[in-house]
Amino acid sequence: MSEKKELSLTEKRHTLAHLLAAAVEKLYPDALITIGPVVENGFYYDIAFSEQPSEKDLKKIEKQMKKLINSWIEMKKETVTSKKAKEIFKNNKYKLELIEEIEKRGEEIDLYTSGDFTDLCRGGHCSNPKKDLDMKAFKLVKIAGAYWRSNEKNDMLTRIYGYAFNTKEELDTYMKMLEEAKKRDHRKLGKELDLYVNSETVGSGLPLLTEKGSTIRRILERFIVDEEIKRGYKHVYTQDIAKVDLYKKSGHYPYYKDSMYPPINIDGEEFMLRPMTCPHHFELFLSKSHSYKELPLRYAEIAKLYRYEQSGELSGLMRVRSFNLADAHIFCTGPEQAGSEIHKALDLIEFVADKFNLKMGKDYWYSLSLGDRNEEKKYFKNDIAWNESESILRKVLKNRNCKFIEEKSEAAFYGPKIDVQMKNVLGKEDTAFTVQYDFVMPKRFDLVYTDKDGKKKKCVVIHRSSIGAIERIMAFLIERYAGAFPLWLSPVQIIIIPVSDKFNDYGEKVKETLLKKGFRTELNNDSETLGKRIREAQKEKVPYMLVVGEKEVKLGTVAVRSRETGDEGVLKLEDFILKASKENE
Amino acid sequence: MSEKKELSLTEKRHTLAHLLAAAVEKLYPDALITIGPVVENGFYYDIAFSEQPSEKDLKKIEKQMKKLINSWIEMKKETVTSKKAKEIFKNNKYKLELIEEIEKRGEEIDLYTSGDFTDLCRGGHCSNPKKDLDMKAFKLVKIAGAYWRSNEKNDMLTRIYGYAFNTKEELDTYMKMLEEAKKRDHRKLGKELDLYVNSETVGSGLPLLTEKGSTIRRILERFIVDEEIKRGYKHVYTQDIAKVDLYKKSGHYPYYKDSMYPPINIDGEEFMLRPMTCPHHFELFLSKSHSYKELPLRYAEIAKLYRYEQSGELSGLMRVRSFNLADAHIFCTGPEQAGSEIHKALDLIEFVADKFNLKMGKDYWYSLSLGDRNEEKKYFKNDIAWNESESILRKVLKNRNCKFIEEKSEAAFYGPKIDVQMKNVLGKEDTAFTVQYDFVMPKRFDLVYTDKDGKKKKCVVIHRSSIGAIERIMAFLIERYAGAFPLWLSPVQIIIIPVSDKFNDYGEKVKETLLKKGFRTELNNDSETLGKRIREAQKEKVPYMLVVGEKEVKLGTVAVRSRETGDEGVLKLEDFILKASKENE
Repeated sequence: MSEKKELSLTEKRHTLAHLLAAAVEKLYPDALITIGPVVENGFYYDIAFSEQPSEKDLKKIEKQMKKLINSWIEMKKETVTSKKAKEIFKNNKYKLELIEEIEKRGEEIDLYTSGDFTDLCRGGHCSNPKKDLDMKAFKLVKIAGAYWRSNEKNDMLTRIYGYAFNTKEELDTYMKMLEEAKKRDHRKLGKELDLYVNSETVGSGLPLLTEKGSTIRRILERFIVDEEIKRGYKHVYTQDIAKVDLYKKSGHYPYYKDSMYPPINIDGEEFMLRPMTCPHHFELFLSKSHSYKELPLRYAEIAKLYRYEQSGELSGLMRVRSFNLADAHIFCTGPEQAGSEIHKALDLIEFVADKFNLKMGKDYWYSLSLGDRNEEKKYFKNDIAWNESESILRKVLKNRNCKFIEEKSEAAFYGPKIDVQMKNVLGKEDTAFTVQYDFVMPKRFDLVYTDKDGKKKKCVVIHRSSIGAIERIMAFLIERYAGAFPLWLSPVQIIIIPVSDKFNDYGEKVKETLLKKGFRTELNNDSETLGKRIREAQKEKVPYMLVVGEKEVKLGTVAVRSRETGDEGVLKLEDFILKASKENE
Repeated sequence: MSEKKELSLTEKRHTLAHLLAAAVEKLYPDALITIGPVVENGFYYDIAFSEQPSEKDLKKIEKQMKKLINSWIEMKKETVTSKKAKEIFKNNKYKLELIEEIEKRGEEIDLYTSGDFTDLCRGGHCSNPKKDLDMKAFKLVKIAGAYWRSNEKNDMLTRIYGYAFNTKEELDTYMKMLEEAKKRDHRKLGKELDLYVNSETVGSGLPLLTEKGSTIRRILERFIVDEEIKRGYKHVYTQDIAKVDLYKKSGHYPYYKDSMYPPINIDGEEFMLRPMTCPHHFELFLSKSHSYKELPLRYAEIAKLYRYEQSGELSGLMRVRSFNLADAHIFCTGPEQAGSEIHKALDLIEFVADKFNLKMGKDYWYSLSLGDRNEEKKYFKNDIAWNESESILRKVLKNRNCKFIEEKSEAAFYGPKIDVQMKNVLGKEDTAFTVQYDFVMPKRFDLVYTDKDGKKKKCVVIHRSSIGAIERIMAFLIERYAGAFPLWLSPVQIIIIPVSDKFNDYGEKVKETLLKKGFRTELNNDSETLGKRIREAQKEKVPYMLVVGEKEVKLGTVAVRSRETGDEGVLKLEDFILKASKENE
């Protein structure tokens, strides 16, 4: 989508929010309208109703909107005095509050009128709603509660959501994608495929992984640990709790205080559940002296971290209160070595993405998050270091065959970073993980090495992840694969189904052979019909079913049914093993 | 050692404690003697000195003991009134306190006199010290501080330790073993071999594993996880924190309160760092219903646990505040299935012990820890269940080719258990881990399955470990192997040492080949002499050194030096790989 088109869509959505408010005023004369902004894929309007509508009333409101549009041939702007504005909205305490605030800020008070509806607004609409809007390209979809100005001390209002696009086709496509996304929702599939459970007695945001979910986690962890070790990382185990002093030393404490859990007092000392790994790796680095020959030194860890999330924001495996981050810190001799290490970190990220068949530029891309020399509170003051490190990161990205954008004032406190942006099944963009350049922590922790000339010099530290938080990537992959994991990630890879009891022994033998070859194999010899057992295996999304009966026993074969391609015919067991081993690589 | 001989050694040690006190009274007339018990391998005496002796004074005290012995031809017992006892010890407030307590308990007050020394004592000495004691078979070894009656609110006394045996040879053997144990001390080797570090900023009892220590931990974890999965365990990941409600539900809370860390308040709910895994696995079990067909159901986990230890008791990797336990809970249909599962659990334990070359009966054995029907507070009241489960455990042990003893009133609250007893390098016996039979928790958590007859029935649960806490087994193995780990456990398995710079390229090639074969390989091409680099590798206890020079480059060979057997001659690289792969299994 071009930027211009996107902007006009925003105008359309904004105009539809006005139209929604106008329709509500017609149908519910007591209702007080408040604010109605544009959001991703649509708009909403928060309204105080004396009599609460239900979702089945949405049709009626939509109908009213379609009626009103006929007289909406312009959006007339009028700048008024606060006195006049207050007179117009004298019965709406919410609008009065807004008017007073605009007045306080000394800003212009603008009203926009279409048909017989007037709203207080900053502008940004279609010039001719009747002409510009396709009334088949929007849909009211949901009613929810929302506090006035998102403050729970305020009145509870009713939020009506709508989706809106340029054309009906775009709306339909989006609605279909939503439908698909619902089917792929990792919370739904997590339950259906028995991957994790929640326990109220254990606590919210603390999911327990079942055997199957644990198998996926273990495979992912071993995959990334082994790959990182191959690439020269030193994998370590540090601790999940530490004295608060450690986070004060690192300077993280004031910034992370709100997302950390309260301290635990042990013998008069305060300990914290760690919210990040960095200071732990720094302490390990500081436990001995280092020569330039040892650098770059790459400490990696599957680090359990704890961050506070409000209970309302918790969601499945995606937003949890404790997660396991594939984290690393690379100690470099200086900017030049840092540049080369960032290249290698991106190589690894692209290797991992490729393993999940994610395509650069389509499924993911990079965002270069820069500092801002004018924001002296937000960013550590050192213009030379900022200029140098930003230009290194830019150079790295320019030298790669990759898609990237630049974002101003999105850096970390301690240096610029490269964010890896990914789209989820809803098409929503999110930062999956980052590669950060750090010239501040080395000063704070006195992270030095002895150079060739015998002098102690400060390191540059790269913070990076390769596969992100294990829980989060699991949620992402469940949705990406809709639960049908590739063979190497499937909790159960092969299921053997004997045609009847008589062939259970052969089934058992095939199972043992496959287990010995390292395949996660199950045997379903339940006293159910063959058809039911096949359907069960399909429901569980097992990549291969091996059906065995009289013929198979006689010939030492298996009848292969693939989840992807269906019946694959009868194979010698050893040929199936060869085929599956190759796919499992 | 027979039981009789052991008893007489206790008498000798006790007598030597008296003799020590007598010698101190002669040399330090102001000193007040307090109590002097027998301990493993010797004895001590706690004394209040006005002028503190130092360890170099021990020789002098020993000499005095050897002088006094000549007049110690009997230990004359006299039972006295408390009045008389108080008169004798009127200047010793500690003895007066003891006398009053004996009086309160209504017990006899006994004095024992040898030579001109009299002590308040319960008895148990040699009848003729001069004849019975070999004065070359003891040694005063250490001075330490100790509070009167181990209470830190009381006076600090001076504790003098001595070792004592039947013969000088036994003493020498023990002293030599101590020497050896000191060399093997995992805290010393942990530092020398760079396996772990402590950080004051992180906190006591929270060691950080370096790359090498982490490699050992990862190998041990993967070894046990893979082996358990092979044996039908379902490996899961539960959480390290949970609401306090969970431990109240399990009934653990009141018993474990003192060894748990204080709660963490999150949004008004109290969360605890978990001290045990059981209730987490129970919650997972409860997340769905189970048929008898699914049982035995074996949940296993490398579970991070947190237990309070006083800072003075923390020690290296052996006594820590957070550790990773290879834990499991097996849900059984009833006692019979439980018996068969206990057999399998012991099979696994013996498999693991064999992997470390530990011999049943010599390095480890079993202790059957029984309940006590009369102790109704200590043990859950259910005589039938106790009788049944104890007889099952006894039957299991009797049916195995194993060494076991029975210990009364050593069971868990919820059922009898089999303790796996091991000796460390100091010959000290300790419970390494346990297999427990539990008929209480299934009631508390309502852990049921649906039986063949469609009725819900209570499970029996087996709690067990296979390799114990990873940190603890690491400490044990470091000491057992004196840091010279077998090939499969060595952090660095092979080190390549080029004779000179000219052969670095070949060294690199050999390294790459070995890395690809999965060997943890390093190349030492530092600008040091060949001899120094070889000595370094020896100090690091690397199993294999491959020295490469002109001849090796020409022939594609490596000159093999084994840590165990020294020079093993020149081998084709592929032959060395074959040999090492075989050893690595």
